[in-house]
Amino acid sequence: MPPHQLGRPTLASIAAAAGVSLPTVSKVVNGKADVAPATRAHVQQLLDLHNYVPVTRRPAEDLLVDVVFTALDSPWAVEILRGVTESGLEVVVSSQSRTSDVDWVQALVAGGRRGALVVTSRLTAADQRRLGRSKLPVVVIDPVDMPGQDVPSVGATNWAGGLSATEHLVELGHRRIAVVGGPQGYLCSRARIDGYRAALERAGIAVDPDLVVHGTFRHQGGHDRARALLALPDPPTAIFAGSDEQAFGIIEAARQAGLSVPADLSVVGFDDLPMARWSSPPLTTVRQPLADMGRVAGRMLHDLINGRVLGSQRMELATHLVTRASTAPPRH
Amino acid sequence: MPPHQLGRPTLASIAAAAGVSLPTVSKVVNGKADVAPATRAHVQQLLDLHNYVPVTRRPAEDLLVDVVFTALDSPWAVEILRGVTESGLEVVVSSQSRTSDVDWVQALVAGGRRGALVVTSRLTAADQRRLGRSKLPVVVIDPVDMPGQDVPSVGATNWAGGLSATEHLVELGHRRIAVVGGPQGYLCSRARIDGYRAALERAGIAVDPDLVVHGTFRHQGGHDRARALLALPDPPTAIFAGSDEQAFGIIEAARQAGLSVPADLSVVGFDDLPMARWSSPPLTTVRQPLADMGRVAGRMLHDLINGRVLGSQRMELATHLVTRASTAPPRH
Repeated sequence: MPPHQLGRPTLASIAAAAGVSLPTVSKVVNGKADVAPATRAHVQQLLDLHNYVPVTRRPAEDLLVDVVFTALDSPWAVEILRGVTESGLEVVVSSQSRTSDVDWVQALVAGGRRGALVVTSRLTAADQRRLGRSKLPVVVIDPVDMPGQDVPSVGATNWAGGLSATEHLVELGHRRIAVVGGPQGYLCSRARIDGYRAALERAGIAVDPDLVVHGTFRHQGGHDRARALLALPDPPTAIFAGSDEQAFGIIEAARQAGLSVPADLSVVGFDDLPMARWSSPPLTTVRQPLADMGRVAGRMLHDLINGRVLGSQRMELATHLVTRASTAPPRH
Repeated sequence: MPPHQLGRPTLASIAAAAGVSLPTVSKVVNGKADVAPATRAHVQQLLDLHNYVPVTRRPAEDLLVDVVFTALDSPWAVEILRGVTESGLEVVVSSQSRTSDVDWVQALVAGGRRGALVVTSRLTAADQRRLGRSKLPVVVIDPVDMPGQDVPSVGATNWAGGLSATEHLVELGHRRIAVVGGPQGYLCSRARIDGYRAALERAGIAVDPDLVVHGTFRHQGGHDRARALLALPDPPTAIFAGSDEQAFGIIEAARQAGLSVPADLSVVGFDDLPMARWSSPPLTTVRQPLADMGRVAGRMLHDLINGRVLGSQRMELATHLVTRASTAPPRH
């Protein structure tokens, strides 16, 4: 029966066409494990052929997971969330704070959750014990500390990002290049600064410790550090920021100092949030594939819930430089 | 028994203290309807007295609702979401698109949802029929069209926002003030432009039809319209934008035209997204209390789920002008 004669395919019509039972088709659609490989392949082929789309979604309790954010106040969060929702999971977002005196893992299990995605949070030893006891599948996105080897995680290639941002500035002719990292001790930040050092060393430029500073990832952090850097006797002509939000703060500090970006100061961000394009001038930045990271983490969690073995406990997605209008050759 | 002797209160200890059954206390905690008013008051008093806090959260299926976004790609969305999560509901965010040929209401009911919040979407006649059939409680946030009287909704005082933005520019001394609205036909946009007209008329300034234009709410919409406005023989000295994102596009169009904001052009936005503070210069804008709107809508939905009658089918939360650095008196 060719697809165009099938009408809107249903699980029943697919089962009839495949010569298998309805529950078997259902198992294939829902990614359940106990179907023979040959049967699964045959059913999947028919599902694809007939463009099967579920009419109603599966019951909520089927693949209900929690996304645990440190704080839901960043555009960062919505990018990751968008990716997670595209991974086929039903995502619950709650304002539940994960504090050490509440067994948040137990709360999730009691709430009928099948798993959890934890975004940019430290997992304490107590957290890891709770997870071990509960067997609740968990995937961590962009962990601040390298989690224990048994906690699957998704990150981005921070070192390569720091390298490409700094190489871009070196190629434009800059020699006095500052870096504003995130708070000290953040692993992602350390990797980016190491990438910055590698690019300078490769270009034969000595690292000036005065030009390596740390601040919060927020606007204020960038603004304050840039003000101090621009007040140096020999100020930098370019600054590589630890986040887009920091970069916006740096651009505003330059404006307040009467400097024009990029004519007087080049600025590179990190993240490529949607608003990097809205900055004036539009921001040159290292794109971190946040939505992809959410999607990949969602799929890993999906696999764990279904008892599949992960190909790798740690996934690092590639960053790449997006060149816009906040960088230019230095004035001479 | 005074509170400090009770230890950590449990449902059982509260039930014992109140002389009622455990299920009765549970009903009061969960806001169920079938408890006698006097009993409810007595139990609630004891819960408050002993600072009862649930140890684990209630099962997910209890108050699971869906938030239906047109698109989860806006920082707007995360602000509303933050408010909704603070209203005590368990919020599911899915990428499900609400298209006319899928009975999305039926899908939510099948998924065990107790209600839905629909954000800035047109409810078609078919949608309204589906809602009527299903009895699924729904609250609409910032509806584009005024929904039917029987659909509860939450919005902001758009007219008052347009009035205050324009009065601010008039007070600074501007006479050539342009407005960039959203797409024509959007109710929120019409209300803002009407507020703009009212402010000009009150100041005795004739409305110049050349200075009233429409564009998408996005960056490109603001950028394109500003470019055209700034190319007029007698260009405006100030522009009131339909959204913050539009305002960022206007600031960039000014930069590209060699104009400085606010010295050569004043710009006022609408929304007060977090990134309005990150703009350079920081954006003067009309604050729309998005998180509050989410919280109020969440509470309305909570009431509907529990069979309570709403005080009002339509709530409008107040907007107010936030003055930052993108507005100044015009050059003479």
